[in-house]
Amino acid sequence: MSKAVFYHAGCPVCVSAEHTVADALKTPVEKVHLGEARGRLAEAERLGVKSVPALVMDGHVFHINHGADLSALK
Amino acid sequence: MSKAVFYHAGCPVCVSAEHTVADALKTPVEKVHLGEARGRLAEAERLGVKSVPALVMDGHVFHINHGADLSALK
Repeated sequence: MSKAVFYHAGCPVCVSAEHTVADALKTPVEKVHLGEARGRLAEAERLGVKSVPALVMDGHVFHINHGADLSALK
Repeated sequence: MSKAVFYHAGCPVCVSAEHTVADALKTPVEKVHLGEARGRLAEAERLGVKSVPALVMDGHVFHINHGADLSALK
């Protein structure tokens, strides 16, 4: 089973998506706090993440509601 | 485990979210095609669904990317 990556920034919208959606996946989920792991902003951007929270699975980006634009985390 | 409801309209964005995210949940997922089950538009609206695809879990609405506004399905 492929891994999922959940990008977030600790915001309330992010926490809600994390606890309700990301934690309910059968797939193992790596959680990346882009406010803390700024070194991974470029990776998220390259994958097509425009805002957080976002879930990347099987090469597809799923923006879940809207917490913050990626540009606000730079 | 509570049930999840996945509202969609058969659009490409919906199908991608359905197959990658909704089908990967541990929770049982009821799938509702709002273009076909128009009788459930009011229910979706009442729950806070603004666009499809959307996943409703534990009383929270998660809009996943953007396929179509609910108003376009009426």
